[in-house]
Amino acid sequence: MSVVSKGLENVIIKVTSLTFIDGEKGILRYRGYDINDLVQYGSYEETIYLMLYGKLPTRSELNQLKEKLNEEYDVPQEVLDAIYLMPRDADAIGLLEVGTSALASIDKNFKWKENDKEKAISIIAKMSTLVANVFRRKEGNKPRIPEPSDSYAKSFLLASFTREPTAEEINAMDKALILYTDHEVPASTTAALVAASTLSDMYSSLTAALAALKGPLHGGAAEEAFKQFLEIGDVNNVEKWFNEKIVSQKNRLMGFGHRVYKTYDPRAKIFKNLASTLMSRNTEAKKYFEIAQRLEDLGIKQFSSKGIYPNTDFYSGIVFYALGFPVYMFTALFALSRTLGWLAHIIEYVEEQHRLIRPRALYVGPEHREYVTIDKR
Amino acid sequence: MSVVSKGLENVIIKVTSLTFIDGEKGILRYRGYDINDLVQYGSYEETIYLMLYGKLPTRSELNQLKEKLNEEYDVPQEVLDAIYLMPRDADAIGLLEVGTSALASIDKNFKWKENDKEKAISIIAKMSTLVANVFRRKEGNKPRIPEPSDSYAKSFLLASFTREPTAEEINAMDKALILYTDHEVPASTTAALVAASTLSDMYSSLTAALAALKGPLHGGAAEEAFKQFLEIGDVNNVEKWFNEKIVSQKNRLMGFGHRVYKTYDPRAKIFKNLASTLMSRNTEAKKYFEIAQRLEDLGIKQFSSKGIYPNTDFYSGIVFYALGFPVYMFTALFALSRTLGWLAHIIEYVEEQHRLIRPRALYVGPEHREYVTIDKR
Ligand SMILES: CC(C)(COP(=O)(O)OP(=O)(O)OC[C@H]1O[C@@H](n2cnc3c(N)ncnc32)[C@H](O)[C@@H]1OP(=O)(O)O)[C@@H](O)C(=O)NCCC(=O)NCCS
Ligand SMILES: CC(C)(COP(=O)(O)OP(=O)(O)OC[C@H]1O[C@@H](n2cnc3c(N)ncnc32)[C@H](O)[C@@H]1OP(=O)(O)O)[C@@H](O)C(=O)NCCC(=O)NCCS
Repeated sequence: MSVVSKGLENVIIKVTSLTFIDGEKGILRYRGYDINDLVQYGSYEETIYLMLYGKLPTRSELNQLKEKLNEEYDVPQEVLDAIYLMPRDADAIGLLEVGTSALASIDKNFKWKENDKEKAISIIAKMSTLVANVFRRKEGNKPRIPEPSDSYAKSFLLASFTREPTAEEINAMDKALILYTDHEVPASTTAALVAASTLSDMYSSLTAALAALKGPLHGGAAEEAFKQFLEIGDVNNVEKWFNEKIVSQKNRLMGFGHRVYKTYDPRAKIFKNLASTLMSRNTEAKKYFEIAQRLEDLGIKQFSSKGIYPNTDFYSGIVFYALGFPVYMFTALFALSRTLGWLAHIIEYVEEQHRLIRPRALYVGPEHREYVTIDKR
Repeated sequence: MSVVSKGLENVIIKVTSLTFIDGEKGILRYRGYDINDLVQYGSYEETIYLMLYGKLPTRSELNQLKEKLNEEYDVPQEVLDAIYLMPRDADAIGLLEVGTSALASIDKNFKWKENDKEKAISIIAKMSTLVANVFRRKEGNKPRIPEPSDSYAKSFLLASFTREPTAEEINAMDKALILYTDHEVPASTTAALVAASTLSDMYSSLTAALAALKGPLHGGAAEEAFKQFLEIGDVNNVEKWFNEKIVSQKNRLMGFGHRVYKTYDPRAKIFKNLASTLMSRNTEAKKYFEIAQRLEDLGIKQFSSKGIYPNTDFYSGIVFYALGFPVYMFTALFALSRTLGWLAHIIEYVEEQHRLIRPRALYVGPEHREYVTIDKR
């Protein structure tokens, strides 16, 4: 026992029937279904059912699920109050952590293996409430609970913006939710698993996941990618910026590269298409989309020989921006969708293969030292 | 790549110069110093210096550290307000998570590798404020910031109970803080490392650690162990309870067993001694101490052949109880001390050996499935 698994690369932390990734061929499947099919034909609610119960729902199963979601948007008043107590310029994921922590502190009699999947559905509904109200708080708007509707995406957008979303917007949000649903065991899911492995509660496990998602090397990358587009500002500046910042200064190109994909991330392709459908009525977003495309070309030319290609976070920000969300919300929107993946993984782990997660460290420090009292130091 | 590392047993996630454990011989050292020496001759402030800077401090270094701690107890008002918003019967670790999340959301411009150790000292001070005020909130008392003093333990006890602690109490609290300082990479530290590996901020990393600490298989065990003593209630009931609950019903004996120690946990010995010094003036605590000792004997008889012995959480609760803390505070008190270990590990990781932590899962689910539209299901 003396080989360090740096970054736990290629260490297998669990088995799963949830998500399959072929990082060489660029294939992603949820429970056997290709991500392209799910985005083209499915909905987020069907994806929730699929991930939790292992099969696509019948019409009546789907309706039941939607009903349950619609019933569960409410959260204790203290939870919203806690978010609204924080300053308007507070970090959005920090505020979400406040929300999930508040729920963990109130829902204190949590027990595993008692209707775990029903609990997960309730939490997914409440996450919509939290994310919408993190946005409302930061925009200076009053709290608002999502209203029941026939679409999780629609209820969320309506609660976020107060106005009725268009069919095109609902569709784009729905697809974004499907795309970010799960991705096997990235850092955030790993953090959730570690917490759940001690038999901590579901909300705390989500809080741990949020804490990891926040970092710029993980979920924070969509914001960082978009900040690059903002900094570039004009499609004619892309080449100069790229040569300076990436080639000369050797900064990482954000939204590029992945531990598992060594080719084009299939989600990036779909996000790119989705973005292109939203550009017709949004000239600001269009500008950034053009910058992103130009930057993508340069990035691929520079890095593809090392297996570094656009990842899911490269174009997702353009979609969220076109929907009307400011950059500071991108990671929270990622979290809204990924809540499903986090919950599905911790339920699979605790119900089917539970064991405390406890790795080791290799000690390389001083041998035994004699204590020396302070006056002799 | 197809062997699952269940619970990451024997997987090495990092190298460290912080903590050495010999699980066969029952040895624990911080930076080379034996835990017995540190508890006997040292103080928690010296331990803070040792863990962060790698050597025991000179008198003037120690004074500087104490000054810095004394300056940093204050937290933004919103943080205390958020804790006080929650119901009195809320879970204590949930409340602590609210506190660290609130700090993460407010301190939003965090950057790594800029005075990490000074930041850690400031956070250690603020953790005292959070834990004391979680206690005060749950007891129905007004908030109170720890006041500067010559002892971190003393400032904490005074803020918690409002009355001046005795020298014996300060000493016991100080030693408990040393004992729980660090233990290599248990689940909570692993969760903190995973979060920090994405370059998320320090407060969020601590929040992830708290989320994992909470579980009954980890930090929650001290509360669970003490609840056994409460349930037994009388030293004459120990044997009957043990035969029923542990031998017949095969429940786990809480406060026993450890992934790394296969012998008596050296911390358990020290906690036991510490408890015995506090019993003379506390008949309630004495009763539970006697129950614990009797239970320990039976547990060792039953389990020692499997390498299952008392761990640190078996007797720590007796010490905390004798100091006047109710059972619901035990995990939070563990967290107060371990904050130092969590911070020392994430700083060591990010500064010296940083890489994104991203393991894999082994896919065992269905092969590629054709999508079937809802009306055909
Ligand atoms: C995601 C990420 C952390 C995964 O990388 P990893 O498996 O940990 O790989 P490493 O950090 O060890 O990098 C391997 C090599 O590729 C390079 N590399 C990786 N991503 C890069 C990027 N986005 N831009 C430039 N170079 C990159 C590294 O510099 C390193 O080069 P070297 O071997 O010459 O030192 C990394 O690609 C990254 O930082 N990307 C940017 C952030 C991002 O978009 N994250 C979202 C992921 S969905
Ligand atoms: C801490 C702990 C999770 C570490 O255990 P681990 O390395 O994951 O070991 P496993 O859970 O795989 O258990 C190994 C065997 O020991 C048994 N065992 C472990 N701890 C036990 C305990 N406290 N009481 C009874 N049996 C125990 C298990 O039942 C298992 O037996 P089996 O092989 O016959 O099935 C475990 O000892 C435990 O649950 N202890 C009680 C909680 C506690 O005190 N935690 C604080 C740790 S500081």
